[in-house]
Amino acid sequence: MHKNKQFRDFLLSDNLVFLMEAHDALSAKIAQVSGFQALWASGLTISASLGLRDCSEISVTETLNVVESMADVTTIPIMLDGDTGYGNFNNVRLLVKKLIKRGISAVCLEDKIFPKKNSFIKDMQPLEDVDTFCGKIKAGKDSQTDDNFSIVARTEALIAGHSISEALDRSYAYINAGADAILIHSRQTTADEILSFLKQWENYAPVVLVPTKYYKTPTNVFEQEKVSMIIWANHSLRAAIVAMQNICRKILKDRSVENVEEEIASLDEIFQLVDQDELSQAEKKYLTKRREND
Amino acid sequence: MHKNKQFRDFLLSDNLVFLMEAHDALSAKIAQVSGFQALWASGLTISASLGLRDCSEISVTETLNVVESMADVTTIPIMLDGDTGYGNFNNVRLLVKKLIKRGISAVCLEDKIFPKKNSFIKDMQPLEDVDTFCGKIKAGKDSQTDDNFSIVARTEALIAGHSISEALDRSYAYINAGADAILIHSRQTTADEILSFLKQWENYAPVVLVPTKYYKTPTNVFEQEKVSMIIWANHSLRAAIVAMQNICRKILKDRSVENVEEEIASLDEIFQLVDQDELSQAEKKYLTKRREND
Amino acid sequence: MHKNKQFRDFLLSDNLVFLMEAHDALSAKIAQVSGFQALWASGLTISASLGLRDCSEISVTETLNVVESMADVTTIPIMLDGDTGYGNFNNVRLLVKKLIKRGISAVCLEDKIFPKKNSFIKDMQPLEDVDTFCGKIKAGKDSQTDDNFSIVARTEALIAGHSISEALDRSYAYINAGADAILIHSRQTTADEILSFLKQWENYAPVVLVPTKYYKTPTNVFEQEKVSMIIWANHSLRAAIVAMQNICRKILKDRSVENVEEEIASLDEIFQLVDQDELSQAEKKYLTKRREND
Amino acid sequence: MHKNKQFRDFLLSDNLVFLMEAHDALSAKIAQVSGFQALWASGLTISASLGLRDCSEISVTETLNVVESMADVTTIPIMLDGDTGYGNFNNVRLLVKKLIKRGISAVCLEDKIFPKKNSFIKDMQPLEDVDTFCGKIKAGKDSQTDDNFSIVARTEALIAGHSISEALDRSYAYINAGADAILIHSRQTTADEILSFLKQWENYAPVVLVPTKYYKTPTNVFEQEKVSMIIWANHSLRAAIVAMQNICRKILKDRSVENVEEEIASLDEIFQLVDQDELSQAEKKYLTKRREND
Repeated sequence: MHKNKQFRDFLLSDNLVFLMEAHDALSAKIAQVSGFQALWASGLTISASLGLRDCSEISVTETLNVVESMADVTTIPIMLDGDTGYGNFNNVRLLVKKLIKRGISAVCLEDKIFPKKNSFIKDMQPLEDVDTFCGKIKAGKDSQTDDNFSIVARTEALIAGHSISEALDRSYAYINAGADAILIHSRQTTADEILSFLKQWENYAPVVLVPTKYYKTPTNVFEQEKVSMIIWANHSLRAAIVAMQNICRKILKDRSVENVEEEIASLDEIFQLVDQDELSQAEKKYLTKRREND
Repeated sequence: MHKNKQFRDFLLSDNLVFLMEAHDALSAKIAQVSGFQALWASGLTISASLGLRDCSEISVTETLNVVESMADVTTIPIMLDGDTGYGNFNNVRLLVKKLIKRGISAVCLEDKIFPKKNSFIKDMQPLEDVDTFCGKIKAGKDSQTDDNFSIVARTEALIAGHSISEALDRSYAYINAGADAILIHSRQTTADEILSFLKQWENYAPVVLVPTKYYKTPTNVFEQEKVSMIIWANHSLRAAIVAMQNICRKILKDRSVENVEEEIASLDEIFQLVDQDELSQAEKKYLTKRREND
Repeated sequence: MHKNKQFRDFLLSDNLVFLMEAHDALSAKIAQVSGFQALWASGLTISASLGLRDCSEISVTETLNVVESMADVTTIPIMLDGDTGYGNFNNVRLLVKKLIKRGISAVCLEDKIFPKKNSFIKDMQPLEDVDTFCGKIKAGKDSQTDDNFSIVARTEALIAGHSISEALDRSYAYINAGADAILIHSRQTTADEILSFLKQWENYAPVVLVPTKYYKTPTNVFEQEKVSMIIWANHSLRAAIVAMQNICRKILKDRSVENVEEEIASLDEIFQLVDQDELSQAEKKYLTKRREND
Repeated sequence: MHKNKQFRDFLLSDNLVFLMEAHDALSAKIAQVSGFQALWASGLTISASLGLRDCSEISVTETLNVVESMADVTTIPIMLDGDTGYGNFNNVRLLVKKLIKRGISAVCLEDKIFPKKNSFIKDMQPLEDVDTFCGKIKAGKDSQTDDNFSIVARTEALIAGHSISEALDRSYAYINAGADAILIHSRQTTADEILSFLKQWENYAPVVLVPTKYYKTPTNVFEQEKVSMIIWANHSLRAAIVAMQNICRKILKDRSVENVEEEIASLDEIFQLVDQDELSQAEKKYLTKRREND
């Protein structure tokens, strides 16, 4: 529950906090060990690692299992990319209760319609009706069993081709419905529309950004605009993909792993990441008698 | 079912076949796209990606879910690293039936005792009684609903510090109990004991090797010994770990993703790996009317 | 796969076949042992046994787990009450592929909108657009990996207050889209509207009925109309609820189980239902050596 | 967490508390509504309802899913029949942490060896080594993240044909290892050996009984001996089985449900058990705009 308070504090503080993408427990652990303060459980990358498309192919059960395993092995707060909430306001209520039990500190809900599509697929996707989406937010907030659990409302207004004014109207409505912050999304390669939004938003409530496409904009630009959080939304998986592709090709070509040994993690590193030592210590404490060979 | 036949044929053919490790659907897909003919669903790496230790912390249900998702997105045969079979002969029977339903072509069972430990943890682990282990193999073979499903018996005799003679005795017993092949494991950094085993084994039945530690031995050495399969048992995850560690550190240090964009997979590559195009085509066919914004 | 053929034959035959509701593996087994030829995996009762409301609270993953366990312990065909298909045409495709793997022979899809509500809740629920629903049926049929898997299209037109003419139009459209049969649903306490539908339908394609509300109509009336299947949609759970309520109250009042022993199944009966004997036989075959106490 | 305190208080209080068996969320809800103060999530009946034998066929994941759904819909404490803990001390640690997250208040662990068998199967099952079992208890207690979570140690000494003295020795050892109570099990049809045990035990620590076989002994006999809890271990499912068998036979014979309607729960009763009204109220609050038919 402490993690939930920590996440909320991150949202409310003056400092910019970075969320690193994770798609399974191991990538979550690696991000924490590397020094990140919080995690983004990405719908795109969790789906992809399960071989699924980011189009509501993954079920809420599958998602919960993944994020629970992330929370089990880390101590920093995790925000789930909760897509549309897997249905209507009632599904959001069920989701929020489960997330809190599974150790997740926040969920981001987007104003698209279930089944959704990834925002970077070149398609004009319909937005959810504002009142209906506000109902989801209210329902989620009313059902949270821990005061510090956060709901971040993500508007896809700009992605869907609407005006900054529409994005602002939606954002005000979502905050007034109880959202703890706004995630304003864009697929432009510059931050122009995001910056326009921020100017007019005037820090009405905390803002979260995902500069996957407009990554060339220096971070301090967003810092000056008092952005609360930046999400590096899919980079861990994207790095892993290249590495796995390269190692596969190399091993296949060489018919040997001799030349790749230097560039891959040692087995000991895996054992360290899953804290094998803790188990060895525990065995000494709890396994006083070893079962012998029959 | 065709995949099961293919795997069996690989075991019986004169050609050496390489199995690439996979720990989730995406790594399985990448290995297939890269050109591998078969996959090794590794207990160590599946566990690690779930943040678990390779010590029977993962449940059979969790394992089945992972391997099913691998099979759903690939067309090449998969062998599961089935550890000890998750219990006794009866658990093996349940496992085999489920694996066939989930699209897995083979399972490797090892002669250790549940709960097991990873073979590279420096510990003397007790072996299962030979008759008991043969009972598992028989039970597994008798319960398979497809004739071409294969059970590979893995002896940890050498790992457990026993003689080559003990390894051979066990291997004969396992084959006579119905196993389709033997996996002889070693944690020496040279292939000496493996080669001794192979000489005396005289191709009594197909042999599978896992040269994780004795990787410096040239592959043609094993080819000359008529080894059926070589498993690159954990290399995809080990490559991914390094990549994720590096990207995390770099992004954290730079406070930006600008300098990593070139070295990571594009979003389009993710979309391609999960076959987003297929969905776009299907939408044209099946989604004649798009739901419009309210 | 044989079960799928059997179900299709039931649909096409001249004889009326009864489907008994099941909500878990045990109720499925009991229905088969009692003599039923086919099973209805009810969305309402599966949800209720999980403590969930029949309003799309259950995930597709949870549903798949339940029906798989039903199929694992029975040999008669099972039709899943697949609600709206858990999303759009693409979710239907995923569902159909999984159901076939899990041993289910048919799915019934209804022309409501996700998230759905139970048809007996007094509410006017919107129907899915005809073309969109036909897209789901086509997508499901095109993705089935076994020719004999069946898709039954359920129209809620009458439930939603529409005319028989609308119900007929929708039914023709669904059959022309590829559905193997029509389920025409009604919540009237007489069969009048159902019989009108049947007269005009003139056996254009097989029809399935669910006389939960109009249960007083004698079965031979439907037989004369050449109805293919009748589903007893929730009666096993409804009987179990009363029994569990009674036993709870009685034990609580008596502070003892002495007086209930005669009216409940013996432990041996449980062991028989899960085929404990088979395991005892198998132990003799496969467990040659028993592990002794240390 | 309040439920955990409540369960501990039940253990420590002078009053006898009854635990009613539940095998799924619905049976749990019915037991609570009927007036029971606590629940027993039975390994036998949960397994049976999944079509599995009470011989470690069920995985820990499947168990966790069932008990979570029980806890989600009830407010009284639940004790899980945790069998042998699904492996060794380490599996117990994982189990305890998960149970607390899933809302379970206590686990009962038995001193048999994984994979276990049901205690009423006429077989002499080996007991776990005392020190090894104490290691499990210690490990479980050390890993609980809530002080009020309870571990009940169940000795099968009498079931396994050992003396009362052995049962006492084991019980002392388990309490000294940290167990919060002892469950002493017997399959005799009289309570003689249980009463002997209780006399000599002299309330050294709380005791839990399961009078499935010696049910004829009046409850006040145990009350006089200061027994803490009595578990009615499988009666809800046993009642349900008879009811489902009867309804199936009757419907099959009648080819109609007309004559069973009076003896089964109404649909409204199902809706009440899953609190459908709550959803209707919530819809008024959160679903301001209904999606209309296209």
